[in-house]
Amino acid sequence: MWHIRTFSTTRPTLSSAGFELRKLTHTHGEGDVTHLFPGMAFLTARDIIVKTRLFKIMSKMPKGALLHAHLDATVNARVLLDLALKYPAFHIMAEQSLTALNLNSIRPKFRPLPRSVWTEHCSLTESYEVGAWVPLHKARENFTFGGPEGFDRWVISALTISPAEAYRTHNTTVKIWDKFTSTFRMASGLIHYLPLWKEYVRAFLLSSVEDGISYIEVRVNFWYRFIINEEGEEVVSHHDWLAAFDRIVHDVQAELAAQGRADELIGCKIIYSTIRNETPEDLEWYLEDCLALKQAFPHLLAGFDLVGHEDLLRPLIDYLVPLQRFVARQRELGLDIPFIFHAGETLGDGTAADMNLYDALLLGTKRIGHGFSLIKHPELMKICRERDVAIEVCPISNEILRLTSSMPAHPLAAVMNHGVPVTLCSDDPSVFGNMGLSYDFFQVLVASELNSLKTMGCLARDSFKYCCLTDDEKDRATALWDKQWRKFNDWLVQEQHRTLNN
Amino acid sequence: MWHIRTFSTTRPTLSSAGFELRKLTHTHGEGDVTHLFPGMAFLTARDIIVKTRLFKIMSKMPKGALLHAHLDATVNARVLLDLALKYPAFHIMAEQSLTALNLNSIRPKFRPLPRSVWTEHCSLTESYEVGAWVPLHKARENFTFGGPEGFDRWVISALTISPAEAYRTHNTTVKIWDKFTSTFRMASGLIHYLPLWKEYVRAFLLSSVEDGISYIEVRVNFWYRFIINEEGEEVVSHHDWLAAFDRIVHDVQAELAAQGRADELIGCKIIYSTIRNETPEDLEWYLEDCLALKQAFPHLLAGFDLVGHEDLLRPLIDYLVPLQRFVARQRELGLDIPFIFHAGETLGDGTAADMNLYDALLLGTKRIGHGFSLIKHPELMKICRERDVAIEVCPISNEILRLTSSMPAHPLAAVMNHGVPVTLCSDDPSVFGNMGLSYDFFQVLVASELNSLKTMGCLARDSFKYCCLTDDEKDRATALWDKQWRKFNDWLVQEQHRTLNN
Repeated sequence: MWHIRTFSTTRPTLSSAGFELRKLTHTHGEGDVTHLFPGMAFLTARDIIVKTRLFKIMSKMPKGALLHAHLDATVNARVLLDLALKYPAFHIMAEQSLTALNLNSIRPKFRPLPRSVWTEHCSLTESYEVGAWVPLHKARENFTFGGPEGFDRWVISALTISPAEAYRTHNTTVKIWDKFTSTFRMASGLIHYLPLWKEYVRAFLLSSVEDGISYIEVRVNFWYRFIINEEGEEVVSHHDWLAAFDRIVHDVQAELAAQGRADELIGCKIIYSTIRNETPEDLEWYLEDCLALKQAFPHLLAGFDLVGHEDLLRPLIDYLVPLQRFVARQRELGLDIPFIFHAGETLGDGTAADMNLYDALLLGTKRIGHGFSLIKHPELMKICRERDVAIEVCPISNEILRLTSSMPAHPLAAVMNHGVPVTLCSDDPSVFGNMGLSYDFFQVLVASELNSLKTMGCLARDSFKYCCLTDDEKDRATALWDKQWRKFNDWLVQEQHRTLNN
Repeated sequence: MWHIRTFSTTRPTLSSAGFELRKLTHTHGEGDVTHLFPGMAFLTARDIIVKTRLFKIMSKMPKGALLHAHLDATVNARVLLDLALKYPAFHIMAEQSLTALNLNSIRPKFRPLPRSVWTEHCSLTESYEVGAWVPLHKARENFTFGGPEGFDRWVISALTISPAEAYRTHNTTVKIWDKFTSTFRMASGLIHYLPLWKEYVRAFLLSSVEDGISYIEVRVNFWYRFIINEEGEEVVSHHDWLAAFDRIVHDVQAELAAQGRADELIGCKIIYSTIRNETPEDLEWYLEDCLALKQAFPHLLAGFDLVGHEDLLRPLIDYLVPLQRFVARQRELGLDIPFIFHAGETLGDGTAADMNLYDALLLGTKRIGHGFSLIKHPELMKICRERDVAIEVCPISNEILRLTSSMPAHPLAAVMNHGVPVTLCSDDPSVFGNMGLSYDFFQVLVASELNSLKTMGCLARDSFKYCCLTDDEKDRATALWDKQWRKFNDWLVQEQHRTLNN
């Protein structure tokens, strides 16, 4: 039997974690003040976390299913930039000529261009013609602020959130979402290029497997109706996009199988998503698109969601009519595409974003993305318990997007104590730097005296319970995970022996 | 009928509040970044709050009972210093000679000395003999860093918490508690002088009445066994201390009655407190002392509590034996001194401080001081509902002492939705700058879309339900409050008319 959140025999591992954290010193930038404690602000803690033995243990732990991540924010920003640099088609554009003063506020755009319109522009600074596309390589070579290395730093900092932004300059949900959204706008210019996209998806799958994730339901944003093909034309349909995705998953699985590692990736499905700023009328197109894709790729499409900043964009209730029609259409077509809605990712109390929780549950959502404000709603927590609706908790995301100041202040412990099913997720790891699931598991483990390694194992194992696999597939996935867990425990015991003998 | 937390006709008042807040700009110090939103960090918000119409309204609102405040932190630091400057007996001491470098880290001590040992020292800086007592006036006149004004700024900043401390340099519970505790050590050197103490208590009562508070149960820290008499001798017993307190309450009530304002102060009782760092054996002395005081002043002593930083000091369970004996002794003596314990004032999850909630309820606590971590305990919330145990929520205190980053992240809305009885309290207003209850009510009101003026009224009115008055006294107090509320509503309507006509 598994016991969640209780004192257990694996506690010594945890107790040493706080001690390890406190022992490790680290340097910090001018004007910054660092506050060391277990579960502290992730962006200042990361350098310390990676040095701990506990993080090594978390990295080895089998994580089960990753059920909440946005594909466009899953591959390390450095890796993404390196992928882009391989393609001479990529160009870059800025809305102003770069100066030392505007450098940190300019958010460049990327785009692969058809060969016929490749340009001869050299730089984003001297004599830059505002709005012109400069070949990525040229802009990088001739970058005034530190050459190619400075260029890479600049691009990566625009694709990620820094500690200064999260904890100082953008320390409110509204401000940090502004930066957050801009990282997606930028990244999509790089990712939405079919040749790169294939490599990107592959990198996502392999890095997930590397982190002990064996099954994935990833949110893909279909708001852009086409992506760009090898020739630089924006003509690749959602259908062709998914066909490529399907092939990549197969290829990666085949490679792993050839290495005798078939168990390490059970599969990767897609949650069809678009942005909650569409009019209800325009949403219809996406819903029909989703139905068509489900018919074409029944094994691939796991569910439907609406994404974006809940505090500022449209509430679910605005889409009641098209969403109900969507359900009726599924019945007509004999399809099953569960809603897996973001809801309650807010500090609002009684706001439309908070009320999204009611509408998500009334619409029969299978899980709830975030459900950060769920703790305020005893009756909704009861419904989650009764219907086994899990909330996809993204601890590091919530902290960096300023819903919580640190892990000890996060409502996770409270909702778990109320018996609400939970899975831990990474959300947007390329933006936050929490690649894989190891960091989120680490933060949750150290922030509590009640969470043990067993708790973490239980959360990982339960993730299969709430996913969109069939019952048979779930049983198989869980049995494979149990095997991984035993192997992990054997490794852990040996590792402890090694440490004690050194 | 009262409706808590629901949309109401008074909503326009609230809606305009967020707007008012956003409209008002304010300047901020170098390196600070200000984040404007309703319920934002209080120490940066205060200057804006006082300019709003809503704050004017909150100031006029009858608040009912103040049930959680520590007497030694209830009178404005400027007022306290002015009181001290009236007495030539006061001397000041520093552990180092003051320099520009150590100025902000030195925490001076104050003490009124017997006339026979008054000194001729002149200054805390030039040729200061470390550890020597300097007459307060001399130290102030000859203050190297800005003269008397600089001295006052220095003392007041040592008696209060600044935005930089709360939000930057001391931004963890442990660090900010260090500064917080030091303000008490310093203030007690000023307050524990009988002549000043009488004026201090009077100032506390009058400023509370001014803020619309009509009944008080204040925690008095009896850890110091004596205070200092007019002659500078540390000989005033707890008994004489309470006799003076009793007289002052009477005098203030008589003065108000003479002005036809008898209803404005129903009474002020004391919750006997000592610090939770005593050994269980040493606690016995205080418990016997408490019993003796209850016998001498049955109408004055409302309950018993243990105070201090729960994360670092002893848990309640350490005192189980003496506390149970205390209950038995009350039975023997025919006394009734309810426990009113601080518990769960922590971010800890499963820590001793978090577990204090269990022990407080097992010991039959009448209310819970803070109960910040109560939201994590569904069964304890159920007990609070069933037994009508209110939690004394101190919103601004929790924010400044780094349990929550801002009001929207505070668990108050969640515990209210779980049906837990709540009263709003100020805790340590002289340290936090939230004098009276208007600021705490303001922050709670603006941080939610569900809290209306009616919610605030309900919280104020309910405060009598959870206090230590007899049932008859409660009925009378509530009836008086109802009268005040009607008067307040009349004023509010007139005020709205005035505003609309201007």
